[in-house]
Amino acid sequence: MEEMNFEALIALTEKGDFSMLKMELIEMNEVDIAEFLGELDRDMMIRVYRILPKDLAADVFAYLESEDQGDIISIITDKEIKKLIDDLFLDDVVDMVEEVPANLVTRILKNASPETRKLINTYLNYPDDSAGSIMTNEMVELHDRLTVGEAIDHIRRTGIDKETIYTCYCIDNSRHLKGTIDLSDLVFNDRDALLRDIMDDDKQLIFVHTEDDQELVAELVKRYDLLAVPVVDKEERLVGIVTIDDILDIIEEETEEDFEKMAALLPSEDEYLKTPVWILVKNRIGWLLVLMISATLTGSIIQSFEDMLAVVSGLTAAIPIITGTGGNAGNQSSTLAIRALALGEIELKDWFKVLFKEIRVAAICGIILGLANFARMWALGNPGGIEVYIIVSCAMFAAVVMAKMIGCMLPLLAKLIKIDPAVIAGPVISTLVDSLSLLVYFALASAFLIK
Amino acid sequence: MEEMNFEALIALTEKGDFSMLKMELIEMNEVDIAEFLGELDRDMMIRVYRILPKDLAADVFAYLESEDQGDIISIITDKEIKKLIDDLFLDDVVDMVEEVPANLVTRILKNASPETRKLINTYLNYPDDSAGSIMTNEMVELHDRLTVGEAIDHIRRTGIDKETIYTCYCIDNSRHLKGTIDLSDLVFNDRDALLRDIMDDDKQLIFVHTEDDQELVAELVKRYDLLAVPVVDKEERLVGIVTIDDILDIIEEETEEDFEKMAALLPSEDEYLKTPVWILVKNRIGWLLVLMISATLTGSIIQSFEDMLAVVSGLTAAIPIITGTGGNAGNQSSTLAIRALALGEIELKDWFKVLFKEIRVAAICGIILGLANFARMWALGNPGGIEVYIIVSCAMFAAVVMAKMIGCMLPLLAKLIKIDPAVIAGPVISTLVDSLSLLVYFALASAFLIK
Repeated sequence: MEEMNFEALIALTEKGDFSMLKMELIEMNEVDIAEFLGELDRDMMIRVYRILPKDLAADVFAYLESEDQGDIISIITDKEIKKLIDDLFLDDVVDMVEEVPANLVTRILKNASPETRKLINTYLNYPDDSAGSIMTNEMVELHDRLTVGEAIDHIRRTGIDKETIYTCYCIDNSRHLKGTIDLSDLVFNDRDALLRDIMDDDKQLIFVHTEDDQELVAELVKRYDLLAVPVVDKEERLVGIVTIDDILDIIEEETEEDFEKMAALLPSEDEYLKTPVWILVKNRIGWLLVLMISATLTGSIIQSFEDMLAVVSGLTAAIPIITGTGGNAGNQSSTLAIRALALGEIELKDWFKVLFKEIRVAAICGIILGLANFARMWALGNPGGIEVYIIVSCAMFAAVVMAKMIGCMLPLLAKLIKIDPAVIAGPVISTLVDSLSLLVYFALASAFLIK
Repeated sequence: MEEMNFEALIALTEKGDFSMLKMELIEMNEVDIAEFLGELDRDMMIRVYRILPKDLAADVFAYLESEDQGDIISIITDKEIKKLIDDLFLDDVVDMVEEVPANLVTRILKNASPETRKLINTYLNYPDDSAGSIMTNEMVELHDRLTVGEAIDHIRRTGIDKETIYTCYCIDNSRHLKGTIDLSDLVFNDRDALLRDIMDDDKQLIFVHTEDDQELVAELVKRYDLLAVPVVDKEERLVGIVTIDDILDIIEEETEEDFEKMAALLPSEDEYLKTPVWILVKNRIGWLLVLMISATLTGSIIQSFEDMLAVVSGLTAAIPIITGTGGNAGNQSSTLAIRALALGEIELKDWFKVLFKEIRVAAICGIILGLANFARMWALGNPGGIEVYIIVSCAMFAAVVMAKMIGCMLPLLAKLIKIDPAVIAGPVISTLVDSLSLLVYFALASAFLIK
């Protein structure tokens, strides 16, 4: 998407024409206003924030970066903080409390109602990335003994602040989740019908527990095309919902983690440009060191064949071509296997189907690459002659087949022993493939070239 | 998520107890029923499908694999096809038409109403992956001169089949999109209020054109937390909507493409286990060949220093360690740059900030890796002595710095010249980094070791 163009608005702030600026801003979407505020420096940001009408200000606040949120909290009055907490959805308040400095947390909690304060503390105590930690309590609960008419009146009376009113949750006297009902069903049904008769209460009622991982919530939303998932506590009482807008963020976050793990990076939660250099170093250096040390294996294999390499011309030059091709071939297979596992397209029990498929693909690719390599060496008149060309081509075939077998099996093995398959990707596989292909290469060369 | 367990249901099909099976199925979610049908063989699948109540059958049909859809279409009567097309959402019909064999397409179109047939043909003519090709026409349109009461009555009368009624679209006499109104706003407002007075019609009315790319639609949904995006034609008349459940699929699809491109694979639309071997070969062999041929460059650099490598013991063994570490370091940077670009965290104009950050990170990582390498070679008593250790460590430092600079800049360069940054990833960068690091390595070795 094209970036928003805020030049005209920034010009207004520079001219100091705040009444014109306000007229422009109140016509804008709160997401865009928040982005615009993010482009201003601290003092101007606060000044512009204060000209926003109170209700719009709360909407905009929810979309601000946590740094900007902190700046605003630190200068507004206690009364304004109270109002802000009331206006925000509870999950946004919790997100803010998790991000701002400790002294501001104290101020926020002090100004929250005792009830809200208790809820915030409860939410903060749920495990990271659990359904409880991302849910909100702003859902519509309807007693299952109500009629449609009573339900609509109840929603009209209380629903305005609710994060989603499109799915309403039916509970019994002890707040156990009994069923769900869509707002559209309320609109379409007779006012006298009883919720318990028309609600969706089949065996498949979809919900999660507070301790469940957020990935499960995302899976359910994707699988069943839901707009929100209800969250229940250990006693199966309704305590919150997770809405689809938060699910989109979770899906993005989990995907990013996979990208990062597959590139031998520790996952990071912050935006690239906002991450300090030492954090970037910390996220990268560990794997780089491990992989460098493990490449010692490849090095020592070459070492032990150094005499042969020194004698037979043309052998050394082929090393990076064989290992590189093997690495690329293995990387293709491991990426497909890791993603197919992540998307649920394959399971552990499919291991033989996957292996058999990869062996056939590898054999065909290996033959094509081997022949192409022979042609390449011949065309370039590489040193070593036909014998070397044949040995390099055979080693390349072997490298491709081994790389693809290892590439598709290691992620499954990782899953079996409950390691994240993404962590086993690319670089780890390369080290293994490099060593094995060189062993095959040098064994072939020793057998046929050294008389 | 755990896989559904269909053993009990499959046992019922084997026992032939279809009345018991039906009782179980009608309590289940349509997504799960579709998955269960997918596990059965063709004849049993059709037999079980036919015991489903008609309305449930259409819901289930929408979630079936296109192969199973084709099997069902090919055996049901024309009358049943008519009913099915009526019951399905238009976007699901279009998806089906795109996937099933040509003879079935003819049958489907023959049984569609002339109006639906025309719509299907229009949708099929939109460019692949455009908003038009993924939209549905089942949205609630309300004339902006209606009152809230009239609108609710209109929705009650016509809304049951609509894909989403939570956002309603207000149009004028010539079907131009004038604003949107949430169902909740209808419920909360006075029955006598005019839509045009309460609808959301600010300057920021969010919509896309039929020709816009589906990625733009996904961006808007994510950015503005929407449940659906309206689609207008060239004359800005409302023609359809794209709903968030389809957006989730698109986000997943686009992410998969990035994973595949970054692993030097051609993007594939099919599930891994369902893709034939020759398609897998076709998707992989192109890049493998290109990368192998381009690795010739690395090979010829080694070739031209072969005499030196043969003379100085210990130099050859370090080659894979230097190029491997460089490759991993570059891969980290390119992955971060590609993803930051994809997520809009960085833009072309940030190139200097990115480069400066990466150079600092690279310098620190390079020093740590260089020192660790020296310690490693010294501890292992590698051949070549202190001089070789120092040269290898310096070459490693240079490789890391170059790799990170190239890794972060190439994706931006790709974006500048309008190539997909993901295509430039890992393997392409490795080839470049390998060659450059070896040149530095051999230059250092020639200068200091060859007297």
